[in-house]
Amino acid sequence: MTGLDAFHDPASIAVVGASGTPTKWGYWLARGALTGTARRTVHLVNARGGAVLGQETARSLRELPDAPELVAFAVPGPALGAAVDEALALGARGLLAITAGVEDERGLAARVRAAGARLIGPNCLGIYDASAELDLVWGQFRPGSLAIVSQSGQLGLELAGLAADAGLGISRFVSVGSQADVTAHEVLTDLAGHDATRLVALYLESFGDGRALIAALTALRRAGKPVLLLTVGASDAGRQAARSHTGAMTTATDIVDAACETAGAVRAETPARLIAAAQLLVRAPRPTGRRVVVVTDSGGQGALAVDLASRAGLLVEPLPPPTRNAIAAGLPPQAATANPVDLAGGGEQDLRTYGRVVDLVAASGGADAVLMSGYFGSYGRDIPAHQERETEVALELARSAVRHGLPVLVHSMARSTTTTEALRAAGVPTYEDIETAVGALGTAARLAERGLADVRTSSGAEVRTPQAAGGRPGGRPGGLPTAAPTAFGYLAARDLLAGAGIAFPPALAVTDLAELRHAATRLTAPYVLKADWLEHKSEHGGVAVGLGDAIALESSYMEMSLRLGPGRYVVEELDRRPHVVEMVVATRRDPSFGPVVVVGAGGTETELWRDSVLALAPCTHEDALSLIARLRCAPLLNGWRGRPPADTGALADTVVRLSRLAATRPDLLEIELNPVRVAPAGLLAVDALITLTAAAPAAPAGEIAAGDSSTGETLR
Amino acid sequence: MTGLDAFHDPASIAVVGASGTPTKWGYWLARGALTGTARRTVHLVNARGGAVLGQETARSLRELPDAPELVAFAVPGPALGAAVDEALALGARGLLAITAGVEDERGLAARVRAAGARLIGPNCLGIYDASAELDLVWGQFRPGSLAIVSQSGQLGLELAGLAADAGLGISRFVSVGSQADVTAHEVLTDLAGHDATRLVALYLESFGDGRALIAALTALRRAGKPVLLLTVGASDAGRQAARSHTGAMTTATDIVDAACETAGAVRAETPARLIAAAQLLVRAPRPTGRRVVVVTDSGGQGALAVDLASRAGLLVEPLPPPTRNAIAAGLPPQAATANPVDLAGGGEQDLRTYGRVVDLVAASGGADAVLMSGYFGSYGRDIPAHQERETEVALELARSAVRHGLPVLVHSMARSTTTTEALRAAGVPTYEDIETAVGALGTAARLAERGLADVRTSSGAEVRTPQAAGGRPGGRPGGLPTAAPTAFGYLAARDLLAGAGIAFPPALAVTDLAELRHAATRLTAPYVLKADWLEHKSEHGGVAVGLGDAIALESSYMEMSLRLGPGRYVVEELDRRPHVVEMVVATRRDPSFGPVVVVGAGGTETELWRDSVLALAPCTHEDALSLIARLRCAPLLNGWRGRPPADTGALADTVVRLSRLAATRPDLLEIELNPVRVAPAGLLAVDALITLTAAAPAAPAGEIAAGDSSTGETLR
Repeated sequence: MTGLDAFHDPASIAVVGASGTPTKWGYWLARGALTGTARRTVHLVNARGGAVLGQETARSLRELPDAPELVAFAVPGPALGAAVDEALALGARGLLAITAGVEDERGLAARVRAAGARLIGPNCLGIYDASAELDLVWGQFRPGSLAIVSQSGQLGLELAGLAADAGLGISRFVSVGSQADVTAHEVLTDLAGHDATRLVALYLESFGDGRALIAALTALRRAGKPVLLLTVGASDAGRQAARSHTGAMTTATDIVDAACETAGAVRAETPARLIAAAQLLVRAPRPTGRRVVVVTDSGGQGALAVDLASRAGLLVEPLPPPTRNAIAAGLPPQAATANPVDLAGGGEQDLRTYGRVVDLVAASGGADAVLMSGYFGSYGRDIPAHQERETEVALELARSAVRHGLPVLVHSMARSTTTTEALRAAGVPTYEDIETAVGALGTAARLAERGLADVRTSSGAEVRTPQAAGGRPGGRPGGLPTAAPTAFGYLAARDLLAGAGIAFPPALAVTDLAELRHAATRLTAPYVLKADWLEHKSEHGGVAVGLGDAIALESSYMEMSLRLGPGRYVVEELDRRPHVVEMVVATRRDPSFGPVVVVGAGGTETELWRDSVLALAPCTHEDALSLIARLRCAPLLNGWRGRPPADTGALADTVVRLSRLAATRPDLLEIELNPVRVAPAGLLAVDALITLTAAAPAAPAGEIAAGDSSTGETLR
Repeated sequence: MTGLDAFHDPASIAVVGASGTPTKWGYWLARGALTGTARRTVHLVNARGGAVLGQETARSLRELPDAPELVAFAVPGPALGAAVDEALALGARGLLAITAGVEDERGLAARVRAAGARLIGPNCLGIYDASAELDLVWGQFRPGSLAIVSQSGQLGLELAGLAADAGLGISRFVSVGSQADVTAHEVLTDLAGHDATRLVALYLESFGDGRALIAALTALRRAGKPVLLLTVGASDAGRQAARSHTGAMTTATDIVDAACETAGAVRAETPARLIAAAQLLVRAPRPTGRRVVVVTDSGGQGALAVDLASRAGLLVEPLPPPTRNAIAAGLPPQAATANPVDLAGGGEQDLRTYGRVVDLVAASGGADAVLMSGYFGSYGRDIPAHQERETEVALELARSAVRHGLPVLVHSMARSTTTTEALRAAGVPTYEDIETAVGALGTAARLAERGLADVRTSSGAEVRTPQAAGGRPGGRPGGLPTAAPTAFGYLAARDLLAGAGIAFPPALAVTDLAELRHAATRLTAPYVLKADWLEHKSEHGGVAVGLGDAIALESSYMEMSLRLGPGRYVVEELDRRPHVVEMVVATRRDPSFGPVVVVGAGGTETELWRDSVLALAPCTHEDALSLIARLRCAPLLNGWRGRPPADTGALADTVVRLSRLAATRPDLLEIELNPVRVAPAGLLAVDALITLTAAAPAAPAGEIAAGDSSTGETLR
């Protein structure tokens, strides 16, 4: 497969279907293409001939004096195939197909590749590259440093429009359309070497080969170009109906977030929030931490900013006393100086106060970012005599940000004034509402945290080889497996997991009363009795706990086997260690991103609280510890209400072992240990479920393969 | 206290401190006042005399030919007192003080009231009334139907600015400032009779007499004028450090939300979201349910809209098949028709398709609201030939909304175009980003639900008499009590609560070994032993559970009394009923809103999950059931994983009883029952804590009042 060179800065372009009618796509392509005539030859092709936008057209590609390097098509669906073949015959190397409703996209792409060419689209909204003066897209863009790659052309345009409103220009825009040939992953990888691009906005609704996407995002991260990702599927509707408890607990978005974390990217919730963060990242120094100091001229606006910042996970800490004293000098006595800093009329009296105070805050060492909120930006509009001074202060704010290496953001009540334009021109990100400003800061802080963290070079091999990790490329995360999977029995699952180093209580398999009595003599009471083949045993009456002696065990066995029928049962020693915390550790396979490991609050209320976190598998011990620390139930492990702390190290070890097992055994669709009973020293898994992919060889329910080491053996 | 008539439409106004300099407040007041000269006499007063804005000034109020009905002051703090006294001497009935930094605001207010006049401010940003052409405020307003009442003048201005951006005008604006005399509550009550006002935006950061606020909001609700409330204090910093577990679980905002629910108002998170909802409420029919149908021309934008709508609690359900078929006719084959409806190019081909499809959706009976998201609004801008048709369609959308009595909202990628202006003018709420549109719809749906619900006329008496309910007016919700409260011992608390109808297990108080042995004979094993005087017993080793016989009880008593010292201990029967769910039921007192009742997930992990809801006390059985249904842990009560359902009726009864107790006993600061063990039939509270207000008589820790009926008695 060749690269994407023909789309970078082609020496010649032809637009097939060029038109002079503004309601037609051929008009926009032709108009855009003609903006690059200083740089390259532009041919227009129209079957009826004549002039379009003042330039003579050819009636077909064959009439052109030389073969164009890049051909853009705005022709009806049924006509596309022939037109593409014509371009390939002439030797065109890049093809861009806007056309929707193409019947055999795959066949078309195969012919393109066979000819050594590449195709973007079909069913896309075009491409744009500012530094190459390449404009083959709907609408009008202005040059800048933000690249937009979008699976939905119109969402890409929406992002570009919001960027323009925020005063941000575009370096490159690629609407990938159907991705019949060129994929978003390739476009992203290609962007790593695109000098004009400093930041990437990405919209995807399916992820294809998720591990390849991670590799592309990681390459961009290494090239110093952060990626802000927008996707859909976060609603309940996106939740997978899976057989394991944890399947229902994790969403497609959880997996995308884990992938972003691995690759050093950050997900934004909406187009507006994405662009708000982009504005901060393009304009300002990045925050190096989460501490924000609010500077305002209104108590109400200050309180609101602080509220929203706290809820966004930012830290609002008081400024150090020397800074407070320095700020207070020259402010009215009713001013506040801790955080928020409220100028209380001091700004109105002398606009330079804003610049002075922000510089003191930025220099204090107590802020990773300064957020101004209030009237500033409106003074010159309301009182023209103030304009010059207000613009000066705007420049001072920008200088403070650069001097102290932290972002200064402005939320101004003014929508768009001379001052807000000056702020943006000077490099101060400026917002029309406070939540957008706070959101941008939160996203930037998260990105900075990921940027500073290691971009997993050690596990790079797994990341780049989804087959090794058992990934099945295609589709979107959270999709259902296509065939009904099968499951291991409990003992077989135990056996496999024990081999991977997971600890279980001693147990014996029994199939009749004699074996049961024998088991009772070899194990220590109290006992647990389980029907080996049942999933979700407790709902189905397939487990009896706390059987105090051999008689209780026997009577329970009689009752259970009468009700559930004959089969393999398991006698297990009851875990009676005190101060135990019940957790769940599990793995599953995402169709795009391959194996993931999940850890969460376990026991019978797992699905109620849905307190779980996940990471791509395999993960390191350090990853596992940081996952566990993010759980809402983490305090339970750290010595809740005076109890001794649980063995978090052993839990992390189990997470790592399970993640490695999932990564090396693509046949295991889901593994679930629930509960894992974590004591102050060590842990025991007391239930295990393994679901197999449909294709994999399985131990049939209720049977066991000959020679299975667990049969009748204590699994200590 | 007289009413606020002087501020409605005064026959004459004087502006004291009038100025011709635009940087001064006196300029804005004078300029605004002069806009009303067609309606009333306007005097300008300036100590230096001369002309201001083309009108001669008087040097003092005494020089005026007649006494002004309303006087606005823009004078320095130290001069305000004398100026006010002068105005009162002349017989002015309304006073408006912008002035900040006034020393004795209370004294000033007292003099005003003694003279039979009223004062708004000081430290405010003025008032505006469109229909009375009364303009005494900073900035410029345009007339409309939204009233703004704000404790922060500048946040009020921000709301007005956002409203103007959304094309909404203002009916009345009141910046209440320090509320030295006229309070926000009075201004709100007054608005109920203000014809031009259809909707109220309210910003408050303290709530004063919360029950009076509820009465004011309820009056507005009854007058058909919904209130959107903005407040601060939702962050962790606002959480009360209380002695009970539930104290730490509830936030100031929870209480404000409960108050809003009682009064039929809705809280908005930010100024932008408040105005977004206001735009919907002012322009469009209100939604009568939560079902939204998305109509788009982009798969990506449709998916995003659906995602955000689901997360906002709206319902995204497929349209009925007949509607789907009707929509499909005339759309390209790749169009989607369920929900979202994706026109897939059908809109581009003929703009009237938008109107046709929206009307079909609105008529389907399957939508409570229609949300359009995408390119619509940009066609005329990008292709001028399309403008006329696009405007026509905008009007059709408005007609569909009215014809079918539901809101049609438009999120347009265009920021501000001829079409978006036409949409708004025609009554179609129009938004620049999808999350704002979705948020507005969520808020409106919530408000409609509250509007349709009964506005508690039955408990009106409690609402209007905070003293009867033990409310302590003043301060903000969630504030700390000023003196350290005292607590009941366990048995005394049990006794009081049992009197209120709360069920406890049988128990006996013991102070020595002989009494303990006697108790063992009268109660049934297994026993629980508790140190009567300890709060949070389990953390402090003051409780021993599951003592199987008298010997175990005795040995536990020896150990505990050795460790904790002598005192009163309690022997209680262990609750061993199966299938029990542990809950917490509690009450606390808010400084503004008085008693509230809390119900939530109980047991030792109460504070971990923080799953609780609250309502103002007292509440009805129906209120209690609806509270319980809102809990995340509600499925535990409804028969979790095959268990029998718990007695939710008994739990609701306990909530009602506790809420009544809190409402009638202002001396009880906090009551907490945790856990309340709810079985399939009946419940038992097995721990109780009562904290008294500092002033109330308390049973000292570790002692008991003479004649306490619980001493040595079984508390069955």
